[in-house]
Amino acid sequence: PKPDSSRPTKIQELSVYEINERDRGSPAYLKLSKKDVNSLGDLVPFSNKIYSGNLEKRLGITAGLCVLIKNVPEKKGDRYEATFSFYFGDYGHIAVQGPYLTYEDSYLAVTGGSGIFEGVYGQVKLQQLIFPIKLFYTFYLKGMKGDLPAEILGTPVPPSPGIEPSPAAKATESGATIANFTD
Amino acid sequence: PKPDSSRPTKIQELSVYEINERDRGSPAYLKLSKKDVNSLGDLVPFSNKIYSGNLEKRLGITAGLCVLIKNVPEKKGDRYEATFSFYFGDYGHIAVQGPYLTYEDSYLAVTGGSGIFEGVYGQVKLQQLIFPIKLFYTFYLKGMKGDLPAEILGTPVPPSPGIEPSPAAKATESGATIANFTD
Amino acid sequence: PKPDSSRPTKIQELSVYEINERDRGSPAYLKLSKKDVNSLGDLVPFSNKIYSGNLEKRLGITAGLCVLIKNVPEKKGDRYEATFSFYFGDYGHIAVQGPYLTYEDSYLAVTGGSGIFEGVYGQVKLQQLIFPIKLFYTFYLKGMKGDLPAEILGTPVPPSPGIEPSPAAKATESGATIANFTD
Repeated sequence: PKPDSSRPTKIQELSVYEINERDRGSPAYLKLSKKDVNSLGDLVPFSNKIYSGNLEKRLGITAGLCVLIKNVPEKKGDRYEATFSFYFGDYGHIAVQGPYLTYEDSYLAVTGGSGIFEGVYGQVKLQQLIFPIKLFYTFYLKGMKGDLPAEILGTPVPPSPGIEPSPAAKATESGATIANFTD
Repeated sequence: PKPDSSRPTKIQELSVYEINERDRGSPAYLKLSKKDVNSLGDLVPFSNKIYSGNLEKRLGITAGLCVLIKNVPEKKGDRYEATFSFYFGDYGHIAVQGPYLTYEDSYLAVTGGSGIFEGVYGQVKLQQLIFPIKLFYTFYLKGMKGDLPAEILGTPVPPSPGIEPSPAAKATESGATIANFTD
Repeated sequence: PKPDSSRPTKIQELSVYEINERDRGSPAYLKLSKKDVNSLGDLVPFSNKIYSGNLEKRLGITAGLCVLIKNVPEKKGDRYEATFSFYFGDYGHIAVQGPYLTYEDSYLAVTGGSGIFEGVYGQVKLQQLIFPIKLFYTFYLKGMKGDLPAEILGTPVPPSPGIEPSPAAKATESGATIANFTD
């Protein structure tokens, strides 16, 4: 058997925090349903910052679209269908598609990627910490040719509402970002 | 050769019906082109119910967005670009992307999934029975680790405009839904 | 080892030109942000023509949605998140998801496909020649069961702002299109 004839199936775990620092007009809630309650027809483009799981490195941004599917009054929240990407500077991006529920955790599909993430597949767990300001994601990545770079790994800070990026990462100081972090 | 070192390529076939029961404000036709004829610029968020191919089980919902690409007067229909997911309760979801033509069958790409559908790929055939109320899908799924559960399989009822879910499935009676079916 | 038990990982390269001939109302710039500068909230459905890399064959169209993420004044351009497909007539389609930057090249994820492109994955390089009129794409496709058909290959014309499709391809003359090219 040729060792390079099959796509890698090893699972590599990657944790990132997504934080909305209220500095880029995100999310843009487009109330196209024209209804008082959030309803099918509303669209929500968004883009937030992402940090490494240990909160020591600014990695880049998220970018994409949430489609409001339904309001769920008994959960006091909403179901969205989300299509978006995570950007990791020179390392490339990971594309995802799936459910975003404002009231509970969910799993989205990893649909592909670029750069070191070329050919990835699998799923990602989304955990909401403070709606819609702080989220924690755990990627279970298959299909990567190499290992994830050490600088985006590191032991994740346990997810909780109080987490904050390190001051150096928040200020995008030299050494506290990845190369050409996406902004 | 290590038996677990390659992604499964066995094709598993799965049939589902998508039915718009006119009870959830779907589709939300956003006439953003502001033209009389359906035109590029119009966006159509939607979410309908899905049933097993044998029409005996309520499975969940579809959820996503159709982008109107062009009106096709000679076919008396429209071309859409669709990005959406199929939700199967506790089993997870399947994400798809591709063409939706109101006047003929098409194939969409399966871009990934979660839960038992983690890592799926392949394509899905879309057959329209009554626009835009009843559709029949046949998934050709690769990449699944296990076999599809028996309760979502069963011999499909041949697609025709007259099909209806079983009364028990339509009423989401106990035994006529999958576990925690998506609603 | 069973030769058909692993997904093909050979890379097949495919070049296409996307050209906006200003004949189909594309793009539809939806200024939903209601801001003077392009801003998060703006959405841009689009559909343009695609030609083979040697510019001798009309292949089909692109179709999809760009989500404006941010204006980048220092680059005099914009960052978009794009979700769209490339249509190749009877051959099927390729779905992609990722960054579109009006000021530099980028790589998008190939998320799947249909027809001869069933099961494809990998990435595609986007090169802008004249914004937003002429673009050149190089697909690096994995997962294809067979070889790409000769008629959509051929030596690409080197990308430059002056490229034009052959008059026969532009006029969709017999022999200068693929079978049932998408229009």
